Amino acid sequence: MIALVALATVAQAGPVLNDPKVLAQMGREAARYPLLKDDLARARASVDASIRTGVNVPVPRDPGGGATHEQHRRNYNAIYNGGLLYHITGERKYADHARDLLLAYAKLYPTLGKHPAASNQVPGRLFWQSLNDSVWLVYAAQGYDAMRDTLSPADRATIDAQVFRRMADYLSVETAQSFDRIHNHATWAAAGVGMTGYVLRDRALVTRALKGSDGSGRAGFLRQLDLLFSPDGYYAEGPYYQRYALQPFVMFANAVAKNDPAQRIFQYRNGIVVKAITSAIQLTYDGRFFPINDAIPSKSLKTDELYQAVAIGYAATKDSTLLSIAQWQGRTVLTDDGLAVARDVAAGKARPFAFVSRLFRDGPEGRDGALAVLRSGPQDDAQVIVAKNTAQGMGHGHFDRLNWLMYDHGQPIVTDYGAARFLNIEAKSGGRYLPENDSWAQQTVAHNTLVVNETSHFAAKLKPAEATPPRQLYFDDGASTAEMAGAYPGVTFRRTLVQTEVAGLGSPLVIDLLKVTGNTPATYDLPLHYNGHLIDTGFPLTSNVTTRPVLGKDFGYEHLWVDGTATPAAGTGRVTWMTDDRFYSYRFATRQAKVLLVESGANDPKFNLRREPAIIQRLEGAKDATFVSLLESHGRFDPSSELVTGSASAVAALDHVRSGNADVIVVTLVDGRRVVIGVADDVAATATHGATIAGRRFDWTGHLGRATWEKGQ
Amino acid sequence: MIALVALATVAQAGPVLNDPKVLAQMGREAARYPLLKDDLARARASVDASIRTGVNVPVPRDPGGGATHEQHRRNYNAIYNGGLLYHITGERKYADHARDLLLAYAKLYPTLGKHPAASNQVPGRLFWQSLNDSVWLVYAAQGYDAMRDTLSPADRATIDAQVFRRMADYLSVETAQSFDRIHNHATWAAAGVGMTGYVLRDRALVTRALKGSDGSGRAGFLRQLDLLFSPDGYYAEGPYYQRYALQPFVMFANAVAKNDPAQRIFQYRNGIVVKAITSAIQLTYDGRFFPINDAIPSKSLKTDELYQAVAIGYAATKDSTLLSIAQWQGRTVLTDDGLAVARDVAAGKARPFAFVSRLFRDGPEGRDGALAVLRSGPQDDAQVIVAKNTAQGMGHGHFDRLNWLMYDHGQPIVTDYGAARFLNIEAKSGGRYLPENDSWAQQTVAHNTLVVNETSHFAAKLKPAEATPPRQLYFDDGASTAEMAGAYPGVTFRRTLVQTEVAGLGSPLVIDLLKVTGNTPATYDLPLHYNGHLIDTGFPLTSNVTTRPVLGKDFGYEHLWVDGTATPAAGTGRVTWMTDDRFYSYRFATRQAKVLLVESGANDPKFNLRREPAIIQRLEGAKDATFVSLLESHGRFDPSSELVTGSASAVAALDHVRSGNADVIVVTLVDGRRVVIGVADDVAATATHGATIAGRRFDWTGHLGRATWEKGQ
Repeated sequence: MIALVALATVAQAGPVLNDPKVLAQMGREAARYPLLKDDLARARASVDASIRTGVNVPVPRDPGGGATHEQHRRNYNAIYNGGLLYHITGERKYADHARDLLLAYAKLYPTLGKHPAASNQVPGRLFWQSLNDSVWLVYAAQGYDAMRDTLSPADRATIDAQVFRRMADYLSVETAQSFDRIHNHATWAAAGVGMTGYVLRDRALVTRALKGSDGSGRAGFLRQLDLLFSPDGYYAEGPYYQRYALQPFVMFANAVAKNDPAQRIFQYRNGIVVKAITSAIQLTYDGRFFPINDAIPSKSLKTDELYQAVAIGYAATKDSTLLSIAQWQGRTVLTDDGLAVARDVAAGKARPFAFVSRLFRDGPEGRDGALAVLRSGPQDDAQVIVAKNTAQGMGHGHFDRLNWLMYDHGQPIVTDYGAARFLNIEAKSGGRYLPENDSWAQQTVAHNTLVVNETSHFAAKLKPAEATPPRQLYFDDGASTAEMAGAYPGVTFRRTLVQTEVAGLGSPLVIDLLKVTGNTPATYDLPLHYNGHLIDTGFPLTSNVTTRPVLGKDFGYEHLWVDGTATPAAGTGRVTWMTDDRFYSYRFATRQAKVLLVESGANDPKFNLRREPAIIQRLEGAKDATFVSLLESHGRFDPSSELVTGSASAVAALDHVRSGNADVIVVTLVDGRRVVIGVADDVAATATHGATIAGRRFDWTGHLGRATWEKGQ
Repeated sequence: MIALVALATVAQAGPVLNDPKVLAQMGREAARYPLLKDDLARARASVDASIRTGVNVPVPRDPGGGATHEQHRRNYNAIYNGGLLYHITGERKYADHARDLLLAYAKLYPTLGKHPAASNQVPGRLFWQSLNDSVWLVYAAQGYDAMRDTLSPADRATIDAQVFRRMADYLSVETAQSFDRIHNHATWAAAGVGMTGYVLRDRALVTRALKGSDGSGRAGFLRQLDLLFSPDGYYAEGPYYQRYALQPFVMFANAVAKNDPAQRIFQYRNGIVVKAITSAIQLTYDGRFFPINDAIPSKSLKTDELYQAVAIGYAATKDSTLLSIAQWQGRTVLTDDGLAVARDVAAGKARPFAFVSRLFRDGPEGRDGALAVLRSGPQDDAQVIVAKNTAQGMGHGHFDRLNWLMYDHGQPIVTDYGAARFLNIEAKSGGRYLPENDSWAQQTVAHNTLVVNETSHFAAKLKPAEATPPRQLYFDDGASTAEMAGAYPGVTFRRTLVQTEVAGLGSPLVIDLLKVTGNTPATYDLPLHYNGHLIDTGFPLTSNVTTRPVLGKDFGYEHLWVDGTATPAAGTGRVTWMTDDRFYSYRFATRQAKVLLVESGANDPKFNLRREPAIIQRLEGAKDATFVSLLESHGRFDPSSELVTGSASAVAALDHVRSGNADVIVVTLVDGRRVVIGVADDVAATATHGATIAGRRFDWTGHLGRATWEKGQ
């Protein structure tokens, strides 16, 4: 009888998250596939190193980046890879090492209380924040799943009870409030708890994961799928966190698909999981995520989350354009889905991923503004405009309604600071967000949008900001118009960005029309943060060469040194800089604007900030106002031949007229041609509008009109 | 009779600089060779574009980077490539286009006087400085050589007389003083004049080129070969100008070898031409030239001069390690020598170029100091130390005796500003050297070496600086000692740099011992300019967060903002920064040093300077003093996995003792090991020295002793 029970238990202990036969096949084929062979070698090397080191499961002590923190991270990787490698290589030592680690955790975990380095986040037990405990569980559960049937019943019972069930309970019951949030931390917890449920054959855990701690469906994974992504697959916190959030979604969706096929999880909400994957990829330039909100600007698609997402997305869809992303990433994952990616890439099945201009609506219903992406083409070095017309995006959101970014020729040109954080670098506030993330990075003036009276949108208060999204009024492949009311009492502002190709110019021109209506005279600032070295200005500058004043007192202004000031005469508003080997001229026809040239870095005693330049257009005592700006990419310095071409702008003049219920912007080129853009107040598609420009008639239908007039016309 | 004369003239008009049969063969083979096929397509496209544009030979007007300047550059390229392409492709249109351009020059050139944009350089006629006229002549002569036999006798006579003979006379007779200088500008002139001599069959021009305007040999190409390179092939102005200077040397040497084989030019002075080529290659990191003196830091081996140099050097030596450089460059030149390079690379004959630690003596006899290069290995991302113990290097030299640079893991770490110049960018002082090149880039404080009383070496006066080189006292593969007397009245300083491998550390440690003897109390500053973002300091810092004072009044100090100051307690002297994904800790055991953290950019009204940080160790009221510093590369942030390793220094302490006639530096590692370096005052190889360190005896023979003591030993 005893033997029979043991057998039944073993049958119930086999892998449910990966197919061991496919893993074994990977072991036989991996050497043939470029995307797998290095990865497999890396995984082996890392687990072999862990085996040589021996079991090291320290009592938790350090915050992010510290020694115990990193050791527990290494351990879950060793458990995860150990389990998979056991099947891939057929070598029992990998399963045994995962067992030894897990038995050590079974001894340690029950003794732990709140982590000693816990701060204002929900505390974990192994890590300073419970989020990391959830991540530990997601990975360890997958590794455990792969080798659980190699264990003696006693070991299995010990690890089941003392590690997995305890952690799952801690994350879902003991911290139920955090588990039931609609937030990516809760998705990690749900994924960890739900995977544990599948592995332990515990239906209650699965239900808790899918439907929240009370099983009602008011929280949990499905509700998170309903609320955390917009109908276009945009994640509320922005691309950097979309990448991070994606991983528990795709990993757990994959587990659900394999174990509860009737749930049809990949069809759920019109295929939201796959939309979330492809949108994350769309929200990159040259592989790097658009760094809006709290983001580390160097973060690219070459990251664990996206290796997993691409493999799981490909398994779910067989969309061969995902294979070209895997090719760019240069690797995939050591799972059954990863094998399919590697095999099909090797078979030449990859097709180019279609990067396109697209509107990504924000909010669960798609009604809370949008991220508008304008691309001049699908290539890596195309010109891209990002109009950030999204809602706040929770605690990691920045106060930068209607902000915009530009990329050109492979470089960020108009920039977003991203987060003020040195991730996992202990000497910088333990690797956590720095104080300057609040005082600078999240403030409006650190972005490229309107600031009123040196105060951030919503006075930098999260609650009203969360309640008040902008409205996306218009979008086409080359233009976006959005409007924001409520960021300041009595002030509404509307911004139109137009990316327009002009024959003979190497890059499109970008026109920026920002209109403000206000009810009391105020100071309006429009900063433009650029990446480059200033070449010259079209106007005389008063430079602060021996003492640089600090611009202001609060809302990020205290971090800006003023390098120079000017009051440009009409027609002279131009600043030219160089980025890499190219020239960029920023021109403005804003009436009576002063100009401030500034640099970040003031009031930064610990050198926490990068020092980066910005141009501020300033209007004083304004109520209704119109900022009219133009950004032009031109010319090139070839460092090999030392030849310079096109260092002078191709634009002779920028003019703006108000005509009826429309604004008309006229860009006169040096060759005499004129690029004319009409922007009607009315966004209706069928309304007709017209203006007379220098004696010539210009009529158009719909919100936007565009024309190029030849010289003399 | 007329026909016979014409034939004789044609016979005398055939190519003498390239073999037309080999060029025709290139046309047949180029598509097979990766190094040629793009280059050939580029050359065709560029000349085809010139043909489409038609003849455009404008009256000179603009300085460097301006429209007429660039047009005349494009024209000499069209003449050069046109001549070669005529043979390579067999298409007559290329020869005809070169002819049409040259006939236009034959009309324009005789009408020209001094260039209207001439400044303080020797004026040219086509260009603002005669140097560019010489370059024009070097290229045009080669193009003309290739197609001269296609001309009617009348056209040939016109172009001979009105373009080439006139230019050659202008450059060698009318500006004889400049022609007879020992200077790279004169080498370009000699090359242009000498090549013209070969092409026109005018022996007098050749003699003038080889032996100076009076034919005495006191000037001219051979004398330049004697004096402009050291016996090790180091060029007095430094690597950036070595690259530039190299081109007329190698091109003209090649012409001499082909037309005057008896001259044995490649054997001249023990093969100095080839030494100059290989030394130029040695003086790079990851392909970029060490940017000492007036240098544009982005300049790499991917440049016309080095394509030519590698092809000509290979033709002269058949040294197959040069082929690996051609491979890295990804191209070669459209000459008969270029074909051999492309063919042999395609045949797999390339062997790795041997980058090694090496001393490059300076001065025509090798007695004027040296450039010491220490490499931890031959690979691209090895750690490299450059000790700049060279002489002044003429007008482009900087006042930075015993300066040093460091590279590590592919990045510049301890930096040299290079030149303050936006090459060929008209809006920046016409693309010429900026005023800040004098006020900042050439000053001592812009470098990593001793400054006394906030005054540059030699008070930044060229004449005494030229007269007083440092002395290289010692060199081995991991260390350099040099001494400087005369940069300041009564002050002598000596610097030892040691690069020492320690088992278990990812990069060698670098020890910097700088000893000063002076006769009156003074302020000694030792700046270290680094490339990176400050992480933290080992000592409390007084930060200037709302007003940054300017450090000084003159000698570059007026360009430094003071970010923070400190007086570190003993044992706390450490500053850690990040470069790319790695950490660097700079430690100092200098007794009683204050520390200033500074940034360039003050007194820079036109934004001409890059803004870069530096650390200054300052000693006040000092006479004899010893600066003891250690630079350590450690750890890594992996942006993909977000894992951080080794962010804390592996060094626990840095100590210095004076013992007898030696200094001993002890680096105690966190793991308890001690790295002990003894530096005797005596540089003799056979003298023995000793010291007692914490009760343990340390004896060594010769100038330097090194030991690693295990923990507890």
